[in-house]
Amino acid sequence: MWSIQDIKMMNRALKLARKGTYTTRPNPSVGCVITQGDEVIGEGYHIKAGGPHAEVHALNDAGLAAKGSTAYVTLEPCSHYGRTPPCALGLIEAGVVRVVIATEDPNPQVKGRGIAMLKEAGISVSVGLLAAEAKRLNKGFMKCMAIRLPWVTVKLAASLDGKTALSNGVSQWITGPESRRDVQRLRARHGALVTGIETVLADNPSLNVRHSELGELKQSLSETDIIQPIRVILDSRARLPVNMALFEVESSILLVSCVHYPEEVRNAWPEHVSHLLLPSMDGRVDLAKLLEHLGSLCHSVLIEAGATLAGAFMAEGLADELVLYQAIKILGDKGRNLLSLPEYGSMAMLPSMTLIDERKVGADTRLTLKLG
Amino acid sequence: MWSIQDIKMMNRALKLARKGTYTTRPNPSVGCVITQGDEVIGEGYHIKAGGPHAEVHALNDAGLAAKGSTAYVTLEPCSHYGRTPPCALGLIEAGVVRVVIATEDPNPQVKGRGIAMLKEAGISVSVGLLAAEAKRLNKGFMKCMAIRLPWVTVKLAASLDGKTALSNGVSQWITGPESRRDVQRLRARHGALVTGIETVLADNPSLNVRHSELGELKQSLSETDIIQPIRVILDSRARLPVNMALFEVESSILLVSCVHYPEEVRNAWPEHVSHLLLPSMDGRVDLAKLLEHLGSLCHSVLIEAGATLAGAFMAEGLADELVLYQAIKILGDKGRNLLSLPEYGSMAMLPSMTLIDERKVGADTRLTLKLG
Repeated sequence: MWSIQDIKMMNRALKLARKGTYTTRPNPSVGCVITQGDEVIGEGYHIKAGGPHAEVHALNDAGLAAKGSTAYVTLEPCSHYGRTPPCALGLIEAGVVRVVIATEDPNPQVKGRGIAMLKEAGISVSVGLLAAEAKRLNKGFMKCMAIRLPWVTVKLAASLDGKTALSNGVSQWITGPESRRDVQRLRARHGALVTGIETVLADNPSLNVRHSELGELKQSLSETDIIQPIRVILDSRARLPVNMALFEVESSILLVSCVHYPEEVRNAWPEHVSHLLLPSMDGRVDLAKLLEHLGSLCHSVLIEAGATLAGAFMAEGLADELVLYQAIKILGDKGRNLLSLPEYGSMAMLPSMTLIDERKVGADTRLTLKLG
Repeated sequence: MWSIQDIKMMNRALKLARKGTYTTRPNPSVGCVITQGDEVIGEGYHIKAGGPHAEVHALNDAGLAAKGSTAYVTLEPCSHYGRTPPCALGLIEAGVVRVVIATEDPNPQVKGRGIAMLKEAGISVSVGLLAAEAKRLNKGFMKCMAIRLPWVTVKLAASLDGKTALSNGVSQWITGPESRRDVQRLRARHGALVTGIETVLADNPSLNVRHSELGELKQSLSETDIIQPIRVILDSRARLPVNMALFEVESSILLVSCVHYPEEVRNAWPEHVSHLLLPSMDGRVDLAKLLEHLGSLCHSVLIEAGATLAGAFMAEGLADELVLYQAIKILGDKGRNLLSLPEYGSMAMLPSMTLIDERKVGADTRLTLKLG
């Protein structure tokens, strides 16, 4: 069904799409390549929400030569008038005769309509080339459009024997500087960052993405291009004082509690703080309800929390992926455990997972595990 | 100092040497390549203690062409009459004019004398090419000859969060069949296997090398070629009953206790059992003394034990290497810990280690870590 040329061109479109990884949110990352025979005559990718879509860039690049061409797009071209006119129409008007699409747009406003529009105009349309890669590239967008829940990544860092800190709480630094920079990039790819009140009280972190710590990404991503994730603090008993470092950084904070904050605390919050009250029977934040709410704000959530909260996301089956940074260290049995999970009686009860990526990050190893 | 040809030939000699890995004990694995100009005219490796050394095989292979040749040997040629005449003499008599040696023989009976014998005969001798690889190949022999203590490898198997079993003790199977076969090969490379009474009582293992479980090694290593490691059981309080599975396999067993076994138990032991009494103040086996004794019996020891015993070898600085099989599983904080170690107050106090090898073994990852 697909020629070598097709595969090559879609891979090229995917590579272009990836350039938008850090900047297109809340839009998906999309790439487009336009060819005449073996020759690439136009290419482009979506850079920023509100700006032109990938197809527009590629068609502009091709110019009049687009007549009679083939277009490779990593996501179904849109069919609706949003901030930009529909891309399906653009392709039709440019005279493209064949469109190869990696995957359908799960967005209910599009979902097959872009394909239908192209077909109605007499264009030959094929869908599904490198679909898995294209879906993975926009995993948050895909999941959230389909079921209105954000993609949940749990970030963990531990020694080879699965410890996150010494018994006295010392955890600086188990992993190396390259891993810490990699975590900054991981944050920069997520729409929200979730942590617990205990972590905030213990470490007083800013929880933002710091341009100076992005490593090699600094060159291609300017400070103002960074889309700061919403900082979500789970503070069931409304204990968070206002003199914490995270309030000093001006980007969205969402405080989630099961009870009301005192009036004087609420009044002291800066503009960028909002509050979600999630009353609960057991005094703990209902994570499923939290994710329902976050699904209306963003497509992907990074959990950077201690063993209890991170374990709860896993144990409740709410996490999609684990990113584990493993340091070449042994802390011993007195160290603190990585994940609080239920007491399992048999191996068959363990959470199922698949290793999808493994690589060196400085002296550490980063494992990416798909759950479920 | 070394030409490309030298490096190539020594690598070839090392590759030959490795063929003897499982069969030369207690002798070191040695390879030899003989060249005339760019051409290899003879090669060989030591196969079995008592049989010809690598140089003898290579000289026989070269025949009269050895006159005026260069010999590459991974270990200094011997200078003494043992079970075979000295190899240095063989090289001299064959008319070899240049000898390149990876590393000196640490054996006090040789140690530079082979080199001296060659030089006295007017042969050009260079030492040190690929020395690190050559030493690593015979790490047990090297260490034991130098300081009379065996090389100590600690074998571990755990989940990604460093757990070896569920809280109820279930540990079958955390790692996969390929890892278990790899452990059989690891056993087959060691002179002794050390475990604790608790492991024996809990699992009733045979603790031998099983030919059927050697995987791809089965083809090149026959059942009778296997050199069974001495099975060493640490049984401080002399509790081991005689009806255990390990007694049924006819290969050496060394029971180590701090107190005497009852007469009737001793009388029931089969021929292949010996006993080492190591009285101690704290009622536990003195591991340093144990290693001193084992150094007189073999060159390398594999620790296959629980968290307490394996941790003690590490904490006392007696282990040289960790081999950690990591399964893509998470057992959670209720699981059993990998290593019992002291309570460390700072990261600087942690045992220092260097990753020297990392590879996939089936679905698991095997990490090899050099300690110290």
